[in-house]
Amino acid sequence: MANPSLLILPGDGIGPEVMAEVRKVIDWFGTQGRPFTVEEGLIGGASYDAFGTPLSDETLARAQAVDAVLLGAVGGPQYAGVDYALRPEAGLLRIRKEMDLFANLRPAQCFEALADFSSLKREVVSGLDIMIVRELTSGIYFGEPRGIHPDNAGGRVGINTQRYTTDEIRRVARSAFEMARRRGNRVCSMEKANVMESGILWREEVQWVHDNEYPDVELSHMYADNGAMQLVRNPRQFDVIVTDNLFGDLLSDAAAMLTGSLGMLPSASLGAPMANGRPKALYEPVHGSAPDIAGQGKANPIATILSLAMALRYSFDMGEEATRLERAVEQVLADGHRTADLMGPEGGTPLSTSAMGDAIVAAL
Amino acid sequence: MANPSLLILPGDGIGPEVMAEVRKVIDWFGTQGRPFTVEEGLIGGASYDAFGTPLSDETLARAQAVDAVLLGAVGGPQYAGVDYALRPEAGLLRIRKEMDLFANLRPAQCFEALADFSSLKREVVSGLDIMIVRELTSGIYFGEPRGIHPDNAGGRVGINTQRYTTDEIRRVARSAFEMARRRGNRVCSMEKANVMESGILWREEVQWVHDNEYPDVELSHMYADNGAMQLVRNPRQFDVIVTDNLFGDLLSDAAAMLTGSLGMLPSASLGAPMANGRPKALYEPVHGSAPDIAGQGKANPIATILSLAMALRYSFDMGEEATRLERAVEQVLADGHRTADLMGPEGGTPLSTSAMGDAIVAAL
Ligand SMILES: CC(C)[C@H](C(=O)O)[C@@H](O)C(=O)O
Ligand SMILES: CC(C)[C@H](C(=O)O)[C@@H](O)C(=O)O
Repeated sequence: MANPSLLILPGDGIGPEVMAEVRKVIDWFGTQGRPFTVEEGLIGGASYDAFGTPLSDETLARAQAVDAVLLGAVGGPQYAGVDYALRPEAGLLRIRKEMDLFANLRPAQCFEALADFSSLKREVVSGLDIMIVRELTSGIYFGEPRGIHPDNAGGRVGINTQRYTTDEIRRVARSAFEMARRRGNRVCSMEKANVMESGILWREEVQWVHDNEYPDVELSHMYADNGAMQLVRNPRQFDVIVTDNLFGDLLSDAAAMLTGSLGMLPSASLGAPMANGRPKALYEPVHGSAPDIAGQGKANPIATILSLAMALRYSFDMGEEATRLERAVEQVLADGHRTADLMGPEGGTPLSTSAMGDAIVAAL
Repeated sequence: MANPSLLILPGDGIGPEVMAEVRKVIDWFGTQGRPFTVEEGLIGGASYDAFGTPLSDETLARAQAVDAVLLGAVGGPQYAGVDYALRPEAGLLRIRKEMDLFANLRPAQCFEALADFSSLKREVVSGLDIMIVRELTSGIYFGEPRGIHPDNAGGRVGINTQRYTTDEIRRVARSAFEMARRRGNRVCSMEKANVMESGILWREEVQWVHDNEYPDVELSHMYADNGAMQLVRNPRQFDVIVTDNLFGDLLSDAAAMLTGSLGMLPSASLGAPMANGRPKALYEPVHGSAPDIAGQGKANPIATILSLAMALRYSFDMGEEATRLERAVEQVLADGHRTADLMGPEGGTPLSTSAMGDAIVAAL
């Protein structure tokens, strides 16, 4: 059997730095008789600089062919003036859409050793473990019509369209219910059914999937504004949250920030099953490209390394290895190793990006 | 000169209870030679029950005629099955739209005596004082086309349209810049210009108003997902935030919850100037109708009383009286008076809604 294949797209800013540490981990698995076939490609600003497009057809074709894609981050201030269709983010949106990665899994987990980094009180976030399932290939991100046009008053009008179908809602709802069964068995669905018809449809279809396919899972519904409040007030009330693309963007970022350790959080974007039965998949850290600290060895590689752990679990059936990698990260933290973003007020000497990668490999 | 006029719409749930306390304060001003002409009307479920519509044309006409409207809250579980166009929220959306109340001012202010109620650390929220200016009469709340239709796959499709014009953006931007000049002189505008064209237009038009009319105010732009994060991470970095209807809904609720005292927060929704030079205006608490505690004397009337203070300031040129009322509220809190929602873990006997109203009048 061929080795499992990975396409690595480091992207922009700190992307290449953190990805270099992931390579060390992958190489370590190679030495343990679990080799991967690894290719690299460009995305975002890096691809725009090289090819004039934030995602080339060739890179997309390779992404479609491998078992899993591992992405760093895209974007940077130098692309602010670039044509809208060619900006770094357009590459990210295109790969999500073309691979049809409809279920974006964003865990918000509070690491015990880092609980004091949260702006929230320790007793509010300690032990926090939420999974946000965000719809990723539809809604207002992709709906037509869209654009900026002249209006009747001599000004302009900007238009975007939120559009969800029964099938789009049901499939991501299924992902959420499946996830809940492996966790706390509870799903909270969030929308604005009180003001948006697309929210009514969302609520009804999620309820339908529940009643017909997952009656054993506990389902509740919440307006998204209340959801934003409840995440701040008492985030541990949630197990799995399922929501649309735009609400998921805001709510998952807020949830991630609750943990106080954004540099620690991975994500998975999953699509339909491929011939081998595994879902199409892209893994990336929740944090962005952080251009302000790029190239200085200050970035925290853990979110990207934990994204690899998610890949091991969801794409390669290597649950044990995933757990082992996660344990190694916990060990390194418990030993007091910290990158700059994880330094407490007591001070100390932060580990560089590369030293953190080495420490994790050593702990493995 | 005629007395200033107020239309009171208590609405549903705890609305009537908290509004009864506001009446006490209004009556007190009457005894001090500042009488108001007060009318009452129905909105939301209460109006639906009486007239079969959540906002009658007659009530709307009265709202258009008075100097200011004071609203309690709308909604309740008993209206879950009501036709979409007749649900309580439709009354609220209609009055906002018909009165063209485009600028929704939502202060998120942390009361020193209550700072420990926040789920955030005291040092993160102490002294917090943000003003969120939310566009309230356009965007995805009102854009056409909208609805639920059959789709091609035998299912349904739910559609809503985000639509903003130059004029709609510029006028709310002006409200934000005006507000900033009276405060910390800084505005942060939030959108998703990286994925939505309506967000690009938003960013450009806010920048235009700044450059041409308010160059003295400091302006920054932030993606709304990052905004949600930054509100959690370090909310005191903000002075005035200006954002669209939907983002404003989520972000202002999250910001309100940061303060830990939702029952304390008022809001103002302002429109174009009337013949008397004052803006059309509606004032309401940020909290909802709280059907679970309605009718039990547990509700906190302070948010609604502080909404009256905003009315004094913005609609009646009674800034001194507004400050006096705000001071009375602070005094009552400093004296240790608390409604049930403000009771700390130490216990004690909470004041009823009515006793809190009396205490505030006594402090006046
Ligand atoms: C970079 C941006 C286009 C993207 C999004 O809005 O989806 C990001 O915020 C995310 O959440 O992955
Ligand atoms: C009740 C609801 C329609 C309303 C809104 O979404 O605007 C509320 O959440 C608010 O923020 O005033």
